[in-house]
Amino acid sequence: MSIQSEAGFRIEEDAFGEISVPKNKYYGAGTARSIYHFDIGGVTERMPIPIIRAYAILKKAAAVINMEYGLDPRASEAIVQAAEEIMNGQLDDHFPLAIWQTGSGTQTNMNINEVISNRAIELLGGVMGSKTPVHPNDHVNMCQSSNDTFPTAMHIAVALEIHKRLLPSMQALYDALKQKSEKFKDIIKIGRTHCQDAVPLTLGSEFSGYVQQLEYGIERVKAALPRVYELAIGGTAVGTGLNTEVDFGPRVVEYIAQQTGLPFVLARNKYEAIAANDAMVEVSGALNTVACSVMKVANDIRFLGSGPRSGLGELLLPENEAGSSIMPGKVNPTQCEAITMVAAQVMGNNVAITIGGSNGHFELNVFKPMIVANVLQSIRLLGDACLSFTNNCVFGIEANKKRIHQNVSNSLMLATALNPYIGYDKAASIAQHAHKRGISLKDASNEMKLVTLEEFDSWVRPEKMLGPNL
Amino acid sequence: MSIQSEAGFRIEEDAFGEISVPKNKYYGAGTARSIYHFDIGGVTERMPIPIIRAYAILKKAAAVINMEYGLDPRASEAIVQAAEEIMNGQLDDHFPLAIWQTGSGTQTNMNINEVISNRAIELLGGVMGSKTPVHPNDHVNMCQSSNDTFPTAMHIAVALEIHKRLLPSMQALYDALKQKSEKFKDIIKIGRTHCQDAVPLTLGSEFSGYVQQLEYGIERVKAALPRVYELAIGGTAVGTGLNTEVDFGPRVVEYIAQQTGLPFVLARNKYEAIAANDAMVEVSGALNTVACSVMKVANDIRFLGSGPRSGLGELLLPENEAGSSIMPGKVNPTQCEAITMVAAQVMGNNVAITIGGSNGHFELNVFKPMIVANVLQSIRLLGDACLSFTNNCVFGIEANKKRIHQNVSNSLMLATALNPYIGYDKAASIAQHAHKRGISLKDASNEMKLVTLEEFDSWVRPEKMLGPNL
Amino acid sequence: MSIQSEAGFRIEEDAFGEISVPKNKYYGAGTARSIYHFDIGGVTERMPIPIIRAYAILKKAAAVINMEYGLDPRASEAIVQAAEEIMNGQLDDHFPLAIWQTGSGTQTNMNINEVISNRAIELLGGVMGSKTPVHPNDHVNMCQSSNDTFPTAMHIAVALEIHKRLLPSMQALYDALKQKSEKFKDIIKIGRTHCQDAVPLTLGSEFSGYVQQLEYGIERVKAALPRVYELAIGGTAVGTGLNTEVDFGPRVVEYIAQQTGLPFVLARNKYEAIAANDAMVEVSGALNTVACSVMKVANDIRFLGSGPRSGLGELLLPENEAGSSIMPGKVNPTQCEAITMVAAQVMGNNVAITIGGSNGHFELNVFKPMIVANVLQSIRLLGDACLSFTNNCVFGIEANKKRIHQNVSNSLMLATALNPYIGYDKAASIAQHAHKRGISLKDASNEMKLVTLEEFDSWVRPEKMLGPNL
Amino acid sequence: MSIQSEAGFRIEEDAFGEISVPKNKYYGAGTARSIYHFDIGGVTERMPIPIIRAYAILKKAAAVINMEYGLDPRASEAIVQAAEEIMNGQLDDHFPLAIWQTGSGTQTNMNINEVISNRAIELLGGVMGSKTPVHPNDHVNMCQSSNDTFPTAMHIAVALEIHKRLLPSMQALYDALKQKSEKFKDIIKIGRTHCQDAVPLTLGSEFSGYVQQLEYGIERVKAALPRVYELAIGGTAVGTGLNTEVDFGPRVVEYIAQQTGLPFVLARNKYEAIAANDAMVEVSGALNTVACSVMKVANDIRFLGSGPRSGLGELLLPENEAGSSIMPGKVNPTQCEAITMVAAQVMGNNVAITIGGSNGHFELNVFKPMIVANVLQSIRLLGDACLSFTNNCVFGIEANKKRIHQNVSNSLMLATALNPYIGYDKAASIAQHAHKRGISLKDASNEMKLVTLEEFDSWVRPEKMLGPNL
Repeated sequence: MSIQSEAGFRIEEDAFGEISVPKNKYYGAGTARSIYHFDIGGVTERMPIPIIRAYAILKKAAAVINMEYGLDPRASEAIVQAAEEIMNGQLDDHFPLAIWQTGSGTQTNMNINEVISNRAIELLGGVMGSKTPVHPNDHVNMCQSSNDTFPTAMHIAVALEIHKRLLPSMQALYDALKQKSEKFKDIIKIGRTHCQDAVPLTLGSEFSGYVQQLEYGIERVKAALPRVYELAIGGTAVGTGLNTEVDFGPRVVEYIAQQTGLPFVLARNKYEAIAANDAMVEVSGALNTVACSVMKVANDIRFLGSGPRSGLGELLLPENEAGSSIMPGKVNPTQCEAITMVAAQVMGNNVAITIGGSNGHFELNVFKPMIVANVLQSIRLLGDACLSFTNNCVFGIEANKKRIHQNVSNSLMLATALNPYIGYDKAASIAQHAHKRGISLKDASNEMKLVTLEEFDSWVRPEKMLGPNL
Repeated sequence: MSIQSEAGFRIEEDAFGEISVPKNKYYGAGTARSIYHFDIGGVTERMPIPIIRAYAILKKAAAVINMEYGLDPRASEAIVQAAEEIMNGQLDDHFPLAIWQTGSGTQTNMNINEVISNRAIELLGGVMGSKTPVHPNDHVNMCQSSNDTFPTAMHIAVALEIHKRLLPSMQALYDALKQKSEKFKDIIKIGRTHCQDAVPLTLGSEFSGYVQQLEYGIERVKAALPRVYELAIGGTAVGTGLNTEVDFGPRVVEYIAQQTGLPFVLARNKYEAIAANDAMVEVSGALNTVACSVMKVANDIRFLGSGPRSGLGELLLPENEAGSSIMPGKVNPTQCEAITMVAAQVMGNNVAITIGGSNGHFELNVFKPMIVANVLQSIRLLGDACLSFTNNCVFGIEANKKRIHQNVSNSLMLATALNPYIGYDKAASIAQHAHKRGISLKDASNEMKLVTLEEFDSWVRPEKMLGPNL
Repeated sequence: MSIQSEAGFRIEEDAFGEISVPKNKYYGAGTARSIYHFDIGGVTERMPIPIIRAYAILKKAAAVINMEYGLDPRASEAIVQAAEEIMNGQLDDHFPLAIWQTGSGTQTNMNINEVISNRAIELLGGVMGSKTPVHPNDHVNMCQSSNDTFPTAMHIAVALEIHKRLLPSMQALYDALKQKSEKFKDIIKIGRTHCQDAVPLTLGSEFSGYVQQLEYGIERVKAALPRVYELAIGGTAVGTGLNTEVDFGPRVVEYIAQQTGLPFVLARNKYEAIAANDAMVEVSGALNTVACSVMKVANDIRFLGSGPRSGLGELLLPENEAGSSIMPGKVNPTQCEAITMVAAQVMGNNVAITIGGSNGHFELNVFKPMIVANVLQSIRLLGDACLSFTNNCVFGIEANKKRIHQNVSNSLMLATALNPYIGYDKAASIAQHAHKRGISLKDASNEMKLVTLEEFDSWVRPEKMLGPNL
Repeated sequence: MSIQSEAGFRIEEDAFGEISVPKNKYYGAGTARSIYHFDIGGVTERMPIPIIRAYAILKKAAAVINMEYGLDPRASEAIVQAAEEIMNGQLDDHFPLAIWQTGSGTQTNMNINEVISNRAIELLGGVMGSKTPVHPNDHVNMCQSSNDTFPTAMHIAVALEIHKRLLPSMQALYDALKQKSEKFKDIIKIGRTHCQDAVPLTLGSEFSGYVQQLEYGIERVKAALPRVYELAIGGTAVGTGLNTEVDFGPRVVEYIAQQTGLPFVLARNKYEAIAANDAMVEVSGALNTVACSVMKVANDIRFLGSGPRSGLGELLLPENEAGSSIMPGKVNPTQCEAITMVAAQVMGNNVAITIGGSNGHFELNVFKPMIVANVLQSIRLLGDACLSFTNNCVFGIEANKKRIHQNVSNSLMLATALNPYIGYDKAASIAQHAHKRGISLKDASNEMKLVTLEEFDSWVRPEKMLGPNL
């Protein structure tokens, strides 16, 4: 892919020689070369911004700690400022690389190093591209390697996004469902097993199942975090830590933990932390389970809200768009549709992550950018979709009490309540009669002269069928 | 795993020395060693019988052709008879090996060679285990290698199972759905988009969509067959054909084509045919698409048949088991449940096959037994489930005309039919009124004095809404 | 999500009332409402541009044909011009909607209708938002519904992208591999089965397997196209074609076929074409198979090119970036890494598509945007990655003849060539001796006094081991 | 499917009338009807035995507790004995039902009830089929429903299989790898990143990464167990507990916990526990992660053990079968092949489970048998394969020290060690020279007169490159 620039070009240089880069971009030769060699997927397939920002957090921490190992304080300070600008989103446009690059993410590490170097040089009044006084490798990447920094950035990005985007949205959905569950606690409705009429429960109880799914979901995501908090930094190229300092890794981790407020720790085994990305597969497994949960909830809500006339019609969903120009009450469950599409995507992503995670070789798994891009997409989509679903659907759900009552009243399953009074066989014959004639149990009881209307009303009470024997 | 035998043991021998095998089994040392080393999955995880039978077809063909290359006719004849006994299912008990063995299937090739050798020896009055006068390698495996025979057996087995089990069952389901589509062609019902009431169509049209899915499905499976018909035989170890005869492969293929009645041909490139199993991934992709189709059809049928009172209730499903001891009409759509579970399995198998198919290295893909076991399971399950679904569900489906008519009559969407007569705005106001009051459009028209009952009946005719303008 | 605009706002209106839209955007109220309600995934998760352009092709065709059904020629002409601007990519910024919207894609249809309407109004000198003289629904959407147009646009977009991006790139990779296969046809190398040394073949033969995989891959993708060429247009809301004209669908399809040069036809059954998206699952299955193929090829190339000293080292890959600052010859197989990551993504996408494809209900599958976004991403990524891999890797591959020769010469497997001369047992003992001592077969033969050096050279000829007996 | 019996038949009866069952089987009419209606998959596709045994544990517990609710102690005792016979595997032949039955598992519950009833009747001297004095529904199923018992049996079976089959095998693999890691701790070898030569590490460190993967894997599986320990029993049909006793569920759970020694507890929300199977999706996610881990380890081992001449050759794998009749040292990594095939299967199963888990509706997920069959297969296969891999591969792995030493000595990457003495540029030029000439660094140093042989030996020490600066 050729690089275009209206701002003109400057020359940057690396081991392969000189190369033009846009004057108004901070990146250098390594980044430019990657643009040329990896023209895959177009502009929407770039390394996710959360990775860029997480990398900046790491580079800032490294610059601070590296002062202890001889990094000039002025260089450190400039690196810190440049990193903070990245963290704040001011330099997003300087990270043009594709997800589909080298599988180690080395080129993104170089992109970060180059941008920080050139921005720091600029801050210190130097000449961009001169690598002086802040060298991308010697200073920005000091004590580090792509092989330990990229997985470190992956873990930081995933942990932050989970805390920032996913858990609050899941909590919001949990809260909204719980509120509905409580609101609906006295509405008795027909149960459905095998999609067929079954014994009654309350609408609140039905929603309590959804609440429970979300509660578990939050637990599941959190249960995967301890291994996400483990950072590879300090392992450098293959996990040995060659060319770094003994305490560099631990101190960087401590600094990052303090800056982010998250309990990051050093990876238990750095060989594993570089060679495998199982922690990502694990967290994706939790997201996959959450996807199953929200698909179930959203499917139920769209079916229970189906109608307005010829569906189940037990829930009234908020109308956000016109469902039909002529047909009032055609409220399409579009929020359910969006979140179930998201769920399918998360399930697909889980497979891509699994395939990437299983295909590492020797000291380095080289599916890292694909893996983390999928994990981050799953987090973002689930988080956004849970929030959208909460705000634009769940909050506005109302029970269609009339329809719910009709359904439960008409149900043949209430015949079970007659057993203690007239015996199983007669009760069953009433139900059979009602079914054949298409009439209510009460009418059938009456027609068959087996139960009086008064008896029926006092004996057949769905509200007595909501729990075990006392 | 230790081998147990009530019949006592005899000694067989291979390069690793002597080993005991059950007296009443025809297999030899190679098989026994595999039993010891691959104790994985238990008795239900054995190499699928269709592979064993396909292998026998191949060994028979090889024995016939090998006479041209010096195989003693008496040996050939004995091999042919032993192979036919395997083809007829008489020797199934002699193939105890796990799917989870060497990824080339070599051990199953040895199992076949040993069983045929010993059975042929027996037929010729020799001593089992003596490898005389029919040697498992020199005679039964003559001109062959595991590396070309196993993928050949895979392709034969898959092609035969598709023809024997899958296509006839899909055709049966197609026929049954088509018959229903024709039977239901005049039943006008409400359409549902977004699970919400929409404009009408006929129940026959709705079923015609299912028929079309099956028609496409049959096409899709057939479209994958040309590459399944390509056989690797003649490639021996790495595809060069070392140690075989120039015409061996073509003649064997010709013989197999004639014996099976299927248009098997020589693989276009034998290196590919051994190193990759893409043809299996392709056929699994077709099965995966069929799985989507049957899941859609079965889901529709279970929802349309939901009830008896509080569901959509438009279809009456045959009652094969008691759905509830007390509630008549609770007909659980168990056939839908079985076939949708099968569909999910086929989708999962497709992923396993894909992972295996993508992980071949150099001259040999070593995920072959797993791949073919999954393809064969998918074929078998889809075939059996289509037939079970046809016989135990589709044949017995009846339209609940009363409910269907109620649904379409009550629908607010019929208001569109009033547009030409009273204009869009008034038509919409009638629909709005009916929706708010929960009454029929007709009653709403009447209440609002906008349309007389006679006008309503003559203007609002769902049967005029079933196609484009004329 | 709130909409921001530096250009100020104008008011648009729909059934829900007024809403502000940016002055410099052509979209209207329906689009704006979707932005507010579906704030999912951020800017990289928008409806793919190929869908927008395909939709424009369809809208242009509809505007041309609709003149026959009363559409004012001036309106038609303005719609055509606006549609062409979209086709040319001039209006990409006016399509801000998320993939994660209603599952029917209705909101994207509205987005298209609104943009064309307002742009056409502008061209005709009217007032944007006035819906006069070109109404988004009455004119741009005339004779159409979201339910038939969205799947039509899906099929057009997928067919075009396959022809434009995928097939040429796969052909380029095929050509490059074929050229290498021919160039390497005389280089004898050791084969590897089970990753272990095996009998020899030529490097050209090894590459011919890759060529064959690509040849099949192209066939597989093409084999799925017939069902992609079938268009749903004319089915309107549920497949009946209500509110369209009998010949509208066929004429639009004919016009699109002519304009695109692709053999689009009318869907055989429009109920199926709207209710199911099996054709997308099918095409994804073909892409999934191609993904397996390229993963196999790329894995082989990276392993065969591993080294420079301690790997297999048989191939020399082009050096596009510095693999190591200090270690010459460390050429990281980054193109292999990119394409295998792409392959994993395509496999994951296939699962998402399968789940979406299997979850349609009644007259409409509502996973359409997710499905088509994944299919289009798979096509784009595979196409781009094949081209990148071809240009930046395959073209530059050289055989490391010295290493290849060493490997084949040192191989113990050549002992088989001694069988005819000294018998199997002695040949095996030589191989055993060479293995134990870690010396060459030739030296072992010599040490054991079983074969002279001259005999060895004349008998042991790998070039005689490359095919069947003659 | 017709039922065959050499033992003759007796008549059993249910709501649908009389039906013949084999005289020598304890099952009754419900089971027989399911055999007829669900002829899917053949004999290898039966409900997994661990489910049958878990169900027996549950039925035993229920019979004990039900004495408190009026169950005749003699009936209870007979039920307990029959259940114990099932638990001990004595009655496996009496459970012929397919996985592919009703999605609630109701028919398997009936199968259990019938077998226990008839066996208990037999023990008490009654007439089989008479349902007296032990009725399958009234007594064996007392206080229970299929809807709560089947998921309870699922959870019990999965928990037991994990403890019995999976965790011990994973621990065995962990132990074996750890032992190797310690044994190999002083063997310095070349590292490989991007499959290319990189800086050195010890073979022990490389193995320590595998050990860590197993350690995490055990943690991951255990982390999923708390939700597996939650049992649905007491929820009966829809979660309300209708027709059971308030304390029945808790007491049964307590009894099961005591009998199994596992910390089973009552489900936090019984509606969720019946309507969803997310706990199974979660546990499958953990198994999927373990599958990635073992695939990575097994792939490394097969590549590191590749050869004997033309592979990496750093590990010597135990020879369990003949890899080649003529080529000594061709040790095919068949155990690696088996376990990687298993890993692929577990990944595929995870997708099937995910699809089933996401498709529950209303009060009951009806993909239960498919879900649990896949989870149990994944557990069994992973457990068996880990053990087989441990015993037949890992235990016997030896380091090929000679080859390892050659690789590290020949490596160009050691040039980095010269930097402090002669500077980066001269060191790089030596490496470049060695690379171009194909000679060792030492020879290159010598040829270029930049470093003496003595200096080289004292400066270039891989053992100093194994960690960070001190």
